Amino acid sequence: MGGDHGCAVTVPAAVSFVNRQQDAELILVGREEAIRAELKKHRALDHPRLSILHAEEVVTMDDPVEVALRRKKDSSMRVAVSLVKDGRAQASVSAGNTGALMAISRYVLKTLPGVDRPAICTLIPNQKDKPTYMLDLGANVDCEPHHLHQFALMGSALVASSEGKAKPSVGLLNIGEEDIKGNEVVKQTAKLLRADHEKGVLNFYGNVEGDDIFKGTTDIVVCDGFVGNVALKASEGLGRFFKAAVTAEFKSNPLNMLGALIARGALKAISRRLNPSRYNGASLLGLRGLVFKSHGGADAYAYEWAIRRAYDAATHDLIARISASIAELMPQAEAQAASADPSVLPAPIQ
Amino acid sequence: MGGDHGCAVTVPAAVSFVNRQQDAELILVGREEAIRAELKKHRALDHPRLSILHAEEVVTMDDPVEVALRRKKDSSMRVAVSLVKDGRAQASVSAGNTGALMAISRYVLKTLPGVDRPAICTLIPNQKDKPTYMLDLGANVDCEPHHLHQFALMGSALVASSEGKAKPSVGLLNIGEEDIKGNEVVKQTAKLLRADHEKGVLNFYGNVEGDDIFKGTTDIVVCDGFVGNVALKASEGLGRFFKAAVTAEFKSNPLNMLGALIARGALKAISRRLNPSRYNGASLLGLRGLVFKSHGGADAYAYEWAIRRAYDAATHDLIARISASIAELMPQAEAQAASADPSVLPAPIQ
Repeated sequence: MGGDHGCAVTVPAAVSFVNRQQDAELILVGREEAIRAELKKHRALDHPRLSILHAEEVVTMDDPVEVALRRKKDSSMRVAVSLVKDGRAQASVSAGNTGALMAISRYVLKTLPGVDRPAICTLIPNQKDKPTYMLDLGANVDCEPHHLHQFALMGSALVASSEGKAKPSVGLLNIGEEDIKGNEVVKQTAKLLRADHEKGVLNFYGNVEGDDIFKGTTDIVVCDGFVGNVALKASEGLGRFFKAAVTAEFKSNPLNMLGALIARGALKAISRRLNPSRYNGASLLGLRGLVFKSHGGADAYAYEWAIRRAYDAATHDLIARISASIAELMPQAEAQAASADPSVLPAPIQ
Repeated sequence: MGGDHGCAVTVPAAVSFVNRQQDAELILVGREEAIRAELKKHRALDHPRLSILHAEEVVTMDDPVEVALRRKKDSSMRVAVSLVKDGRAQASVSAGNTGALMAISRYVLKTLPGVDRPAICTLIPNQKDKPTYMLDLGANVDCEPHHLHQFALMGSALVASSEGKAKPSVGLLNIGEEDIKGNEVVKQTAKLLRADHEKGVLNFYGNVEGDDIFKGTTDIVVCDGFVGNVALKASEGLGRFFKAAVTAEFKSNPLNMLGALIARGALKAISRRLNPSRYNGASLLGLRGLVFKSHGGADAYAYEWAIRRAYDAATHDLIARISASIAELMPQAEAQAASADPSVLPAPIQ
């Protein structure tokens, strides 16, 4: 039900995905009537691997976290995440309100042992034609060094399992490469990461700068959620600016239009290479279950990528792999988990 | 002497600029021998409006601020900024170490009345084909709300004078448009800016997000130096990524090459529209003198733009205009300035 377009995007994406992926089953959670209408439109009302689970309420994009969490207990978001908790689904995907999705996921699923705060991790295309994994993207706006430290460990575990890299490299986002640069939180974090590197449990590259995200200098870029969110959205904005400039110039006169026609293969390839849709589907990392967040403005094509990412994570048993990695990297994790009280509500998340 | 290329870039840029701008005089500060050699190369040894002022020392890109400030008292950077202090130059331009330039400028020139911390303000091209003024870009990594508040006032004064806009709009960079979003510093800053807006002394638009920088939603975007630096460098990185992708695809086969040849006008126009060189030359804002910082990696073309910006600011008597605006916006500024002790060394800046 979530995102800017609701069922009009999520339902066709689901139909397309199950048709492409013959062993996938999807449960569409939300207002039955609206979902049925969309399924009908796409001639998939009786699809054997698509089912509907009715949920009366909808978390809106503007709902404060408290409302989503405490008042809308029958929201499609809550019901979908609960399916993961109950083992009835291997993963959950939503294009809805990020803060609400994170709070609900954290409350329903709880965090993994050793994790104080879950983080949002997304993939960004880089010049090496590989993804740069970046976290946090907005779940945590005020981070302490030990939070960033955990993000580095979680990101490392994620890339180790999803990309099959034993020791993926971790860069700490800063405003210079030198150790003396940055604010206090970043300087302290670097010390923690360097200590892990010396112990051989983490492949810490050192400080990276904003442009390194797109250079692909490291597999993972770690930052607090405020900085990560601004950097990501600034990049999205610049991407749209590029696209508008290219479109306008190639349509500016008949000669340019002819050139564009002849080189349409190049223009399509450029568009595909830079298309953020292929990278849609951020992971809510550090939870005891798989939850993926699609961009709110995603179209059906992009939303299908988010479903694909969730499917792949479930197929590769990502949670078990991350748990194992984190347990190895954080030997005290089990002890911490034993003393934590999972019945306490999480603090509100931005 | 500064930047990645030293005299090899700054001298030809200076020669080109004085030839273009018939009423401009430039003093080239640095090692006389190196400057003479470059001038000779460009047949400008006896140019009537180019003079050399020898300075023995050079601040390197890696020099800590303390070394640049306290040990290298005869550096080209220090001598050049001192020319502004002594009234022998109207403005100073450097491609050198940003932290050192800021610390030296602050120590030599002092800040304007009412300004606690100077900020680095640059121009970023936006979709409206106008510049977005963004500050701070890295001078201040840990900001309090009153610092961000001052950045908003300084940026507002700068745009009012340089663009001739009486009430330029100010956006506060955040991770969402809603008031409830963001970290504590940003939330408190929004309150200060809103109060100014209600008093009619500032045109505060509200929160903006990363993509608004390139949409041109507001004339000015205010943020702390860490966030600003990361956003700017991430955008630069994406820009290079984009350029590389376009070049590679248009060269990938003869058909695409033909298309590129036919539409070369479009490709040139795209390159020009997105060329950050045209926007080179950040202003060190809040000082009692004009200092401009070129990108360290600038070529002669880009460096000439930084000189152009300094020339324009001097021609429009920017300092007097900013002082007047700030005095109006901050009625207590004069009182604060009277109690400040200008002999105290500034705190080290990152």
